[in-house]
Amino acid sequence: MSAFDALMAHQHQTEALAQVAGRLGWDQETIMPRGAAAQRAEEIGALETVLHTRRTDPKVGDWLAAIDDAALDPVGAAKMRHIRRSYARATKIPEALATEIAKVTSRAQGIWAEARAANDVAHFLPTLEQVVALKRDEAAALAAGGDLYDALLNDYEPGITAAEIGAMFDRMRPRLVMLRERVMASGKTAPRISGQFDEDAQMKLAREVAERFGYDWRHGRLDKSVHPFSSGSGSDVRITTRVDAKDPFNCLYSTIHEVGHATYEQRINPDYALTPLGAGVSMGVHESQSRIYENQIGRSHAFTGWLFGRMAQMFGTAGVADAEAFYAAVNRVHSGYIRTEADEVHYNLHIMLRFDLERALIAGDLAVADLEAAWNDRFHHDFGVAVDTPANGVLQDVHWSVGLFGYFPTYTLGNVYAGCLNLAMRAAVPDLDRDLAKGHTEGATGWLAETVQRHGGLYEPRDVIERACGFAPNEGPLLDYLDAKFAALYGV
Amino acid sequence: MSAFDALMAHQHQTEALAQVAGRLGWDQETIMPRGAAAQRAEEIGALETVLHTRRTDPKVGDWLAAIDDAALDPVGAAKMRHIRRSYARATKIPEALATEIAKVTSRAQGIWAEARAANDVAHFLPTLEQVVALKRDEAAALAAGGDLYDALLNDYEPGITAAEIGAMFDRMRPRLVMLRERVMASGKTAPRISGQFDEDAQMKLAREVAERFGYDWRHGRLDKSVHPFSSGSGSDVRITTRVDAKDPFNCLYSTIHEVGHATYEQRINPDYALTPLGAGVSMGVHESQSRIYENQIGRSHAFTGWLFGRMAQMFGTAGVADAEAFYAAVNRVHSGYIRTEADEVHYNLHIMLRFDLERALIAGDLAVADLEAAWNDRFHHDFGVAVDTPANGVLQDVHWSVGLFGYFPTYTLGNVYAGCLNLAMRAAVPDLDRDLAKGHTEGATGWLAETVQRHGGLYEPRDVIERACGFAPNEGPLLDYLDAKFAALYGV
Repeated sequence: MSAFDALMAHQHQTEALAQVAGRLGWDQETIMPRGAAAQRAEEIGALETVLHTRRTDPKVGDWLAAIDDAALDPVGAAKMRHIRRSYARATKIPEALATEIAKVTSRAQGIWAEARAANDVAHFLPTLEQVVALKRDEAAALAAGGDLYDALLNDYEPGITAAEIGAMFDRMRPRLVMLRERVMASGKTAPRISGQFDEDAQMKLAREVAERFGYDWRHGRLDKSVHPFSSGSGSDVRITTRVDAKDPFNCLYSTIHEVGHATYEQRINPDYALTPLGAGVSMGVHESQSRIYENQIGRSHAFTGWLFGRMAQMFGTAGVADAEAFYAAVNRVHSGYIRTEADEVHYNLHIMLRFDLERALIAGDLAVADLEAAWNDRFHHDFGVAVDTPANGVLQDVHWSVGLFGYFPTYTLGNVYAGCLNLAMRAAVPDLDRDLAKGHTEGATGWLAETVQRHGGLYEPRDVIERACGFAPNEGPLLDYLDAKFAALYGV
Repeated sequence: MSAFDALMAHQHQTEALAQVAGRLGWDQETIMPRGAAAQRAEEIGALETVLHTRRTDPKVGDWLAAIDDAALDPVGAAKMRHIRRSYARATKIPEALATEIAKVTSRAQGIWAEARAANDVAHFLPTLEQVVALKRDEAAALAAGGDLYDALLNDYEPGITAAEIGAMFDRMRPRLVMLRERVMASGKTAPRISGQFDEDAQMKLAREVAERFGYDWRHGRLDKSVHPFSSGSGSDVRITTRVDAKDPFNCLYSTIHEVGHATYEQRINPDYALTPLGAGVSMGVHESQSRIYENQIGRSHAFTGWLFGRMAQMFGTAGVADAEAFYAAVNRVHSGYIRTEADEVHYNLHIMLRFDLERALIAGDLAVADLEAAWNDRFHHDFGVAVDTPANGVLQDVHWSVGLFGYFPTYTLGNVYAGCLNLAMRAAVPDLDRDLAKGHTEGATGWLAETVQRHGGLYEPRDVIERACGFAPNEGPLLDYLDAKFAALYGV
């Protein structure tokens, strides 16, 4: 067997085990018995050790040294690019540290959930301190003298730096702030839907909408969790949502968002399954799919027109008088506390807040003990209201508890990419709104499948967007889209 | 670190990974998307390879050679007994064979489920041929010239041979046949419950009954599957059941049965968690717990009296006129097709059929192509009726599809042990029926927890039964119990 074939066989087993590890996480957040958390941490730790050992196996180093990437076809070369990057990363992290991070973050998630339920920040802080310290250790091992935060960011979005992101955020912020101020000063109040929406019926509609956006039930399932997520690659890609009887948009748009992530995984070229190309290429590109499904398609005037009718059928009412009011309600701009419920105008301000705080935590410029105060100050400044309760503030997101530092900025990067893709998609699929108004998304989701999703990890993140759009990704199209949409909605 | 401590640390990780592998199986049989079967087989194969590598790691051999068991306390010595046995077994099986068995049986289970649903034996046979051939290879590797079937049996019931089981079955069969004939000739027909029993209400009652039998929801959950089972050890022990609107006993008594298995796991001394002592010691002892919960307790006159009242409350009717008719219906003797629905008189005849057929398959005396005919002939002879459809015959059990050869006889061994334990328990807990009549099982389940369950793998299978009962296990008490119970029920 050639070194390349041997490496690919090894990688195939590793990818299969990584799918198992992912599903342990899915199980933990959806259906695991509550008293099983400590044992689950042991299980995850054991599997993480196995994965780390495989990823740092000296045999892999030998194979890598023996393989000439230049002699490979583009698919083989792309696989090598991923494996070389992953090997370089994995060999820098001591096995004991990797095991400890897996164990602590598994436990931390349960403690975070308890703290959030009890609105008790103090219950979470000692554990968060452990997580931050471990992630700083990890970043130091990876950065080799370079920027700690960049080292973590690189796990989620290869090839971009915090400095580049910071610069882009600086360009975006004035226009977002201006748009927000114009909308808030418009004096126009968007309608809100009211009423009770049966929870089982919401889940039924969520299933129907998921299917309309191309979700394949033969290779997935929908469950409930505290924080909606998508999990898995290949032929088992599961999504979750949450249900609030007073707010069906929470359930429905969380579902559409996760379907964006999940169809990205489901529609990758099946030849890439259980290879390094068999998963979405970066968190930013992943988020571009979930965001364009949720916002540019799901919150469009055309699609909300269809959804208004369907909700009226399903619940007896859609909560407002007519389709125009429904469109305005779906896109209502409001200074809410919760990132995942934020409108498109405020959303990126949430991300900028978290980006700055987590950069400071990782840099050592902000102590965990001071995090809640820093969050509350910044929130009051950017959003104009005071945080009322920790569950609506520093405790709202699962990310930090599971060690996801460097992940948040990829949400706004995803929005930026979604803006670019939307511009190109609208040009390529001129009759899109006519179909969306009938609840048919195939024109949009088919174009995304063909231009982005099927490639999996074949191209580098920014390259896949540029190939799909025909221009280099930049923040312009997103800001133009937001200006046009919300200026029209608020008459400003 | 001493060799003993190093071995225990290694074993702890292995046990944790084995729990993960078990949960993959649970997921596959309960909630996995249908199109994920092929990838799941890859995942299970990869994890099985990891487990096999760990279990045959030459380091384990070195540690085993360095440890003097005689110098250990009884708990340490018991751990060593399990690890030495497991290592001897694992090192005899080539890694490629272990991986192949895991892959093929994972796929085979899906094919079996399809064949059963379609009543299509031919759809299953080529796969079953593969499984039998692989298990014969495995048995040959283990037996080293000895009996192939004994080698497989030893995985489920260490320390007993097919010859011993065959001899015991020979002693039991005449009394069972005689009892069956007396009952059938009695002319007395037991009542059957009739009506429709809401499926959600059945599941609700199953949950209540599970709790009454001591099942701990903090460390478990109840789902549905084609074939009910219990899965996991330590703090995550899950059970499944199935629901038939016309036959609530199917759901309820499957649940009680699986709760017997599950509470055995849940009530093991927590100090043994993720060690070789942290699981039930053998399938026979496991089945003794599920059987005594289901039959000697669950189908007792006293407990069915309580259940009659509770079902009448829950469904508006218990399906028969009074508690005596209900007791007779629960214990109705009938020549049914399905093992898991068989009454206590017929049950062991089902096992003897399977034991003889699978012994012949493994010995090479019966071809897979001839299995259905052999099943149907034997069934007609023993049960007096012809098999009407393969789903009621050779396709009814999951076991062979997943490679469980040598497992079936442990069911009857479990019945024999349950008979012994019931005799001892009745002597130790004189007021038991008074409590059972109120739906309280703590006297019985508490005695079993204390005498059997808490020990986990500390004692050898027959020893744990003998210690609990005060006498060497034998078939006498089971047969006496059956004679007395059914003679009274049928007036013979």
